Amino acid sequence: MYDVAIIGSGPAGISAAINLKILGKNFIWLSSRASSKKVNQAPLIKNYPGLPDVTGSELAWTFQNHIDGMNIRICEKVVTGVYDTDGKFTLLAGEEQYEAKTVILCTGAETGKSLENEDSFVGRGVSYCATCDGFLYRDKIIGVLCTDKKFEHEVEFLADLSKKAYIFPMYQGYEIKSQKAEIILKNPVKISGGMKIEKVHYKGGEVQVDGLFILKGAISPATLVHGLATDGGHIMVKRDLSTNIAGIFAAGDCTGAPYQYAKSVGEGNVAAHSAVEYLSKHK
Amino acid sequence: MYDVAIIGSGPAGISAAINLKILGKNFIWLSSRASSKKVNQAPLIKNYPGLPDVTGSELAWTFQNHIDGMNIRICEKVVTGVYDTDGKFTLLAGEEQYEAKTVILCTGAETGKSLENEDSFVGRGVSYCATCDGFLYRDKIIGVLCTDKKFEHEVEFLADLSKKAYIFPMYQGYEIKSQKAEIILKNPVKISGGMKIEKVHYKGGEVQVDGLFILKGAISPATLVHGLATDGGHIMVKRDLSTNIAGIFAAGDCTGAPYQYAKSVGEGNVAAHSAVEYLSKHK
Repeated sequence: MYDVAIIGSGPAGISAAINLKILGKNFIWLSSRASSKKVNQAPLIKNYPGLPDVTGSELAWTFQNHIDGMNIRICEKVVTGVYDTDGKFTLLAGEEQYEAKTVILCTGAETGKSLENEDSFVGRGVSYCATCDGFLYRDKIIGVLCTDKKFEHEVEFLADLSKKAYIFPMYQGYEIKSQKAEIILKNPVKISGGMKIEKVHYKGGEVQVDGLFILKGAISPATLVHGLATDGGHIMVKRDLSTNIAGIFAAGDCTGAPYQYAKSVGEGNVAAHSAVEYLSKHK
Repeated sequence: MYDVAIIGSGPAGISAAINLKILGKNFIWLSSRASSKKVNQAPLIKNYPGLPDVTGSELAWTFQNHIDGMNIRICEKVVTGVYDTDGKFTLLAGEEQYEAKTVILCTGAETGKSLENEDSFVGRGVSYCATCDGFLYRDKIIGVLCTDKKFEHEVEFLADLSKKAYIFPMYQGYEIKSQKAEIILKNPVKISGGMKIEKVHYKGGEVQVDGLFILKGAISPATLVHGLATDGGHIMVKRDLSTNIAGIFAAGDCTGAPYQYAKSVGEGNVAAHSAVEYLSKHK
């Protein structure tokens, strides 16, 4: 059993991990993507104190260096559910299961609405992680909903591996080169099927698939943790970054605007300290 | 009239200033000390993401570089009172007076108790700023209460300038070399006088002075702003860093633990954004 599970590898997760390492806690850090792969496309960040005029990818690189230097590792898994079981938390990530005394949610800003039935097909054909689950769909027919250009390398990885891939790029200026990709410029709205996913429906049509990958910044926190209080898609937190569920903390964009590196890093720090304080009170 | 007045030049103030500059606001930044002079004695900071293993003075230096590079200037004045006057704020700093639509308090963690009567002698012989008010006491007899070794260069500056200086070092390992300094190893407890300060009282004695310099990290926020809600010496803030007084925000150590660079920098960022939002709603 871990003291803490951190979910998400943006600046808040990085800051939380650094502090937990220094504070000597036994923690696991789960994320759909290694931080270094989250190549940020911000052209220039001028307001991260101490690192003037860095690009998003430079900042990501310095953060990565920091955690590498401290021997902190990210476990590349997508957590699809967090369950409160008898004073501890069980985290589901595909076939794996993890237990932790506290959880820090650093899942980022929610991007876009969920599809109709999305929740009910998680683990039954709906996946959020290309590298985790891609191999399950070798030579099969897949759908890929991609919300951001920065995930295009994952789209191509999935398309190349598939028999055929229906790609729904939800942004301007897509450049997807795979021979197996068929681009559909409509918004998917619904999933249907029986025990497993069968179809993705979009305005004016549908496609038959064996699986659907949804590549977006974050899973909805309310989907992730049953009973978590949210407001307008943001996790409601107190000043110490505790949520309405004792033992669960949140930090970064998932707690609301402003969406800023400095704010996320500060909150990751506070959440880590609050989790440690919670642990010392609940031995 | 300024859009914003920032008080305090620690990491929270720096972060707020950087953001206000980027956001194009007309602001004044007041502090008892230029940031660069706050040589931090932290031997090694491991948890400021992006700058692993920096010393306190290295971090202070990189922060200073950042603000220098953006042409942001600190105005070295000690604000001794903030008054809410008809939807704007008036800040008193010695003989000077500044007006601003909003205020961001970044006054740091309060260190030590106030002396008896300290509040009532502010501006009548009690000063918190060596470089601001030192010249008023040339060839006079002064007391200097110093709470931290990092202010020793200011103690020596004051002592050299005075006729005689009674120094109360409130920390271990003082090294004060001025010929005019007389060290008193007792805690001052009280100030007395008429229109002006006359005596500093300590356990078992008293000294006659023309002025008393109190060199500490922060003035009590409740002393600074009448009616400001505090709790255990910390300013009570909401998630957006607003205080109980509309238009006044607070960030950094003054809002409470954990006392961490990352937390302060994050809060400075959020407070700046909140102040700007407030300004746009109260045009």
